[in-house]
Amino acid sequence: QQCDFDDLIKLGGDVLLKALASSVLDKAGLQCTNVKATGSYANCPSDLKPMSCACGNACGSWDIQNEQTCHCQCANQDWSSARCCKIGTN
Amino acid sequence: QQCDFDDLIKLGGDVLLKALASSVLDKAGLQCTNVKATGSYANCPSDLKPMSCACGNACGSWDIQNEQTCHCQCANQDWSSARCCKIGTN
Amino acid sequence: QQCDFDDLIKLGGDVLLKALASSVLDKAGLQCTNVKATGSYANCPSDLKPMSCACGNACGSWDIQNEQTCHCQCANQDWSSARCCKIGTN
Repeated sequence: QQCDFDDLIKLGGDVLLKALASSVLDKAGLQCTNVKATGSYANCPSDLKPMSCACGNACGSWDIQNEQTCHCQCANQDWSSARCCKIGTN
Repeated sequence: QQCDFDDLIKLGGDVLLKALASSVLDKAGLQCTNVKATGSYANCPSDLKPMSCACGNACGSWDIQNEQTCHCQCANQDWSSARCCKIGTN
Repeated sequence: QQCDFDDLIKLGGDVLLKALASSVLDKAGLQCTNVKATGSYANCPSDLKPMSCACGNACGSWDIQNEQTCHCQCANQDWSSARCCKIGTN
């Protein structure tokens, strides 16, 4: 099988891009924090997104509102917490 | 301490790579959506992965199947939801 | 409206950086695994971070300790599990 110059350039570009991507992504990491609040709501800092919520009273029913807020749905929630993450540079 | 030309090149490369990684990762973000379904299962879209699950009836027992599906384990689940995310470009 | 050479360079750099970021981030993905253990604690592998926890006995009250460990808070936990992720190269 033959390949012309354009193929070589394209191949080289793919190899280079993959190597570059690997080097860049080696420096990428998930940076997370936990926010706990009294009551039914817990807010992530504005630059982080909620990945999950935990709730007092053993409650596992929750929803995420506006990509920012954990809402624990059970009655008489004593506490709510949000697990909040972003992509950062190590 | 002395350093030769190779050290300088290597040092420059590390600095450049770190700057490039920082610039590229500034444009990276977690893109997420919530999927709610009736019953015991909720599926993430194929290009997103489940980060967590929430369940009706206050249930906090769940598992993730095939890197795609939230399964709420309690009996008589009225609803299940999946928190689904991917890495995107801002 | 006029723009000088510096503007052109800056504009070109932004376009190039955006294209490069897009190409690199196309190769980025969330790589996740589930760790289930008996008792109240489940640990993520050292290179992954907990995104959420699930607990036996329908329990939805949990916390994440030291960015590594899921702790299910209800009494007599039969099992605990951790959803663990990192940024990887596809």
